[in-house]
Amino acid sequence: MSAPGTGASGPAPRRRGRPARTEATVGPGARERILAAARTEFAERGYDKASIRGIARAAGVDPALVHHYFGTKEQVFGAAIEVSFEPALNLPDLLTHGADGIGERFARYFLGIWENPATRAPLIAVIRSAMTHDTAAKVLRGFVLRRMLERVAAELAVPEPRLRAELAASQLVGIAMLRYVVQVEPLSSADPEDIVRMVAPTLQRYLAEV
Amino acid sequence: MSAPGTGASGPAPRRRGRPARTEATVGPGARERILAAARTEFAERGYDKASIRGIARAAGVDPALVHHYFGTKEQVFGAAIEVSFEPALNLPDLLTHGADGIGERFARYFLGIWENPATRAPLIAVIRSAMTHDTAAKVLRGFVLRRMLERVAAELAVPEPRLRAELAASQLVGIAMLRYVVQVEPLSSADPEDIVRMVAPTLQRYLAEV
Repeated sequence: MSAPGTGASGPAPRRRGRPARTEATVGPGARERILAAARTEFAERGYDKASIRGIARAAGVDPALVHHYFGTKEQVFGAAIEVSFEPALNLPDLLTHGADGIGERFARYFLGIWENPATRAPLIAVIRSAMTHDTAAKVLRGFVLRRMLERVAAELAVPEPRLRAELAASQLVGIAMLRYVVQVEPLSSADPEDIVRMVAPTLQRYLAEV
Repeated sequence: MSAPGTGASGPAPRRRGRPARTEATVGPGARERILAAARTEFAERGYDKASIRGIARAAGVDPALVHHYFGTKEQVFGAAIEVSFEPALNLPDLLTHGADGIGERFARYFLGIWENPATRAPLIAVIRSAMTHDTAAKVLRGFVLRRMLERVAAELAVPEPRLRAELAASQLVGIAMLRYVVQVEPLSSADPEDIVRMVAPTLQRYLAEV
C-alpha cells in the first residue's frame, strides 16, 4: 500500500499532520475500516478514553487519515453513532402502513434490533457514552433529534408529535437499559414477544391516539 | 474508636487497619457523614474512580471507619444507593389508595423526585454508574429487585406483577434518561404536568389493567 516510488517498505511514519496515504493507495475500504474501528474503540473504551490514534491503529491507517475523513474526535463519534443507528434509521414500513398497529410494529422492530447482539452492542455503547459524557450526549441528542425523532414525528397525525415520539423512545430506551444493561429479572429473560405484547399499546397511544 | 488510655489528641494515623476513632470520639454523625460523602464521591467520580480513601477524607474520618461501618467499596455503594433511593422507597400512599389512579400517582410522585435537583443528582449518579460498571449494576439490580420493585409488585392485582412493575420502572427510567441526562427537546423542557398526563395511562395499564 506504499505509494509508488517512495521506496518505503515499513509502516508509514505517524503524525505527519496530513494523510500519509491517499484514497487510491489505502483502498476504498479505508473509510469503512476507520468507522468499524471507531465503533469498537468507543464501545470498548467509552468516549473519554477513546482516541483518534487508537482508532487509526485498529484500522491500520495513519491518524491523519482519520482526521481527513471525519475531522475531530467528536465528529468521528458522530459518524460512528450514525452507523450504529443505521438499523434504527431504516424504520422499514413502520410509517408507510399508517397508524393502525404502529405501536406493535415499532415495539417488534426495536426489540429485534436490541435482541440481535451485533446491532445491540454498538447501540448500548453509544447510550452508555451519552449517559456519562456531555459531549457524547450532545452528539447523540443532535443526531437523534435531527434524524430519527424528527422523521418519526413528521409522519404522526397527533398533537405534539415530537414530544410523543420522544415518549415512545423513552419507553424503548428504558426497556433496553433495564433488560440488557442492568438486567433486572424477570424483564431480562422475558420472551421478546411478551414484551412486544405489553409495550405495543403504550407506543400505540403515544404515536397514534389523541 | 481509639481505646481508652491511648492519649491520642491529634488526627489518628491513617491505614491502621482498624477504626482509629470510637463512636464516642467521632460523634454519632460519622455514619451519616460517610454516607453523604459516599454519595458525593460516587456521583462526581463514578463507581470506578471512587475510593474508600476519598470518601473517608471527605467525611473527615479514617478509611478504616468506612470499612468498619460499611465493609467493601461495593457495600458502601449499596448503602449510598439505599440513601439515594430513600424518597423512591417511601412511596407514600401510592399503594394504599388502590388501583384507581395509581398510574397518575406514580407518574407525579416520580417526576417530583426527578424535578427536585437535590433528589435527582444522586439518582442520576447511581444510574450512570450502573450503566457503565457491572458491579454497580449488580448492586442496583439487587437493591431495586429486593426493595422497590418487589414491594410494588406485591401489591398489584394483575398477572406477572413483577414484569409489569419493571415495565413501569422502565418507562420512568427512560424519561429520566432522555429528559435530564441526554436532554432531548421538547421533552427536556416540557411541563412536568404534561408529562404526567401523557405517562399516567401507560403506568395505569402496566400496574392495574389486565
